[in-house]
Amino acid sequence: MKRSERLVSMTNYFLENPKQLKSLPYFTDMFQAAKSSISEDLVIVDKVFQKEGIGHLQTVAGAAGGVRYIPGFSKRSSLQFIDKLCRTLEEPVRILPGGYLYMSDILGNPKMVNQIGRVLGSAFSEAEIDVVVTVATKGIPLAYAVASFLDVPVVIVRRDPKVTEGSSVSINYVSGSSRKIQTMVLPKRSLQEGANVCIIDDFMKAGGTITGMTSLLAEFNANVKAIGVLAEADDEEEDRVVENYTSLVKISNVDIKQKQIQVLPGNFTQKQG
Amino acid sequence: MKRSERLVSMTNYFLENPKQLKSLPYFTDMFQAAKSSISEDLVIVDKVFQKEGIGHLQTVAGAAGGVRYIPGFSKRSSLQFIDKLCRTLEEPVRILPGGYLYMSDILGNPKMVNQIGRVLGSAFSEAEIDVVVTVATKGIPLAYAVASFLDVPVVIVRRDPKVTEGSSVSINYVSGSSRKIQTMVLPKRSLQEGANVCIIDDFMKAGGTITGMTSLLAEFNANVKAIGVLAEADDEEEDRVVENYTSLVKISNVDIKQKQIQVLPGNFTQKQG
Repeated sequence: MKRSERLVSMTNYFLENPKQLKSLPYFTDMFQAAKSSISEDLVIVDKVFQKEGIGHLQTVAGAAGGVRYIPGFSKRSSLQFIDKLCRTLEEPVRILPGGYLYMSDILGNPKMVNQIGRVLGSAFSEAEIDVVVTVATKGIPLAYAVASFLDVPVVIVRRDPKVTEGSSVSINYVSGSSRKIQTMVLPKRSLQEGANVCIIDDFMKAGGTITGMTSLLAEFNANVKAIGVLAEADDEEEDRVVENYTSLVKISNVDIKQKQIQVLPGNFTQKQG
Repeated sequence: MKRSERLVSMTNYFLENPKQLKSLPYFTDMFQAAKSSISEDLVIVDKVFQKEGIGHLQTVAGAAGGVRYIPGFSKRSSLQFIDKLCRTLEEPVRILPGGYLYMSDILGNPKMVNQIGRVLGSAFSEAEIDVVVTVATKGIPLAYAVASFLDVPVVIVRRDPKVTEGSSVSINYVSGSSRKIQTMVLPKRSLQEGANVCIIDDFMKAGGTITGMTSLLAEFNANVKAIGVLAEADDEEEDRVVENYTSLVKISNVDIKQKQIQVLPGNFTQKQG
């Protein structure tokens, strides 16, 4: 295979297999090429990935060493994306009765969801996450997008137990915004004891749902290493019960009468270097 | 930019932007290269994509023409994947009380889910789908994977109305396996009238859920162009109420006493050329 073809194939391989460490002989076998050629290819791929802001190739020295693709998403691309998101969310037609904001079109767009997953995931790439946890239903696509970026599995907390998942652990908690008692369930075999967890959800108001998830995860002795939400409500009347979280946008003023919404960048923009 | 770097960047571009038609000048501008060079690059990318079984580049002639990446997944890769899936699902530890099969680990693995999405999506790539529809909760990640492959949005039917989605259309239907009356809800603004729809779910027994979705979609004058499920139960005692569907695997014998499961390839393997 010529270098030109090898580069196309190699690019596809790395994008498809993030974080997997492969030795140089793996590539020389795969492409039937000399070590020196493969090394040069890797330098080219790494250079372009960095220039495009999609991560880099990491070389691990030693007998068990090799190379792997560490996905990334540049600060600049992230901020541009968040800015665009704010403007999209400010469209007056999004205001629903009760002052809620229609976001299903954004959450229903796989490309948009993947971008959100990359931005959030890049904030947690150093946190050594073992698993992404979310609660049904709306956070699910975001959780998969983040998990895909971090190359870890997803576990879904349900509000109702399902007969098809075996024995479960459940807790009751008080919802932050509606003050109702709600239930959360997680099948026993879905999460290993002591896992490092990243909680993902679409929207956070007072934070009751996330606090509920944290309590449920405590039953599995999980370490909540990161919490990420697409949007947070900037509601001064309510006490936020969750503190260490990352939000992409902050919905700060929904004026139903004037049909106006103000959406600002979330704390993600302050957190990153 | 050198050809070598351009090929890495171009490969990433096409994989990131499936189905988007771009003119040749778009690429000559992007890479500051001559038309003839870009044309040669495109031939190389197309050749490798086809060899790897991940689709091809389609050239559209004329003033409004250009080139776009049509994702594909080769028959051979699909069959290999289905075979591996069957063996994984036959592990005796998967048997749950009631004869159900534990699949949450597979549905919780983003890489696995993406593969399933590619295999199912490749079966529907000619069907001119506008939107993928699923019902909460377990089908959601699969629906996104298929939608990502087909580059269309996802709409999620819920079993309970949510206040945050505006006015909705709901129906009641009889569940095929439990014979209970259940409800399904779809927000009015989530689906356009007359859309071409692909229904995706994780599991189909008698098919009551899918029939319910079909009835709900009829309220939106949607055309159900395709139905895809990961697994179907091969249950001779029950009448299957859904006929035109594509399944990847068929769970044909769950023997709780003997701790044995038989999982066979689904009708996908017969459908493709």
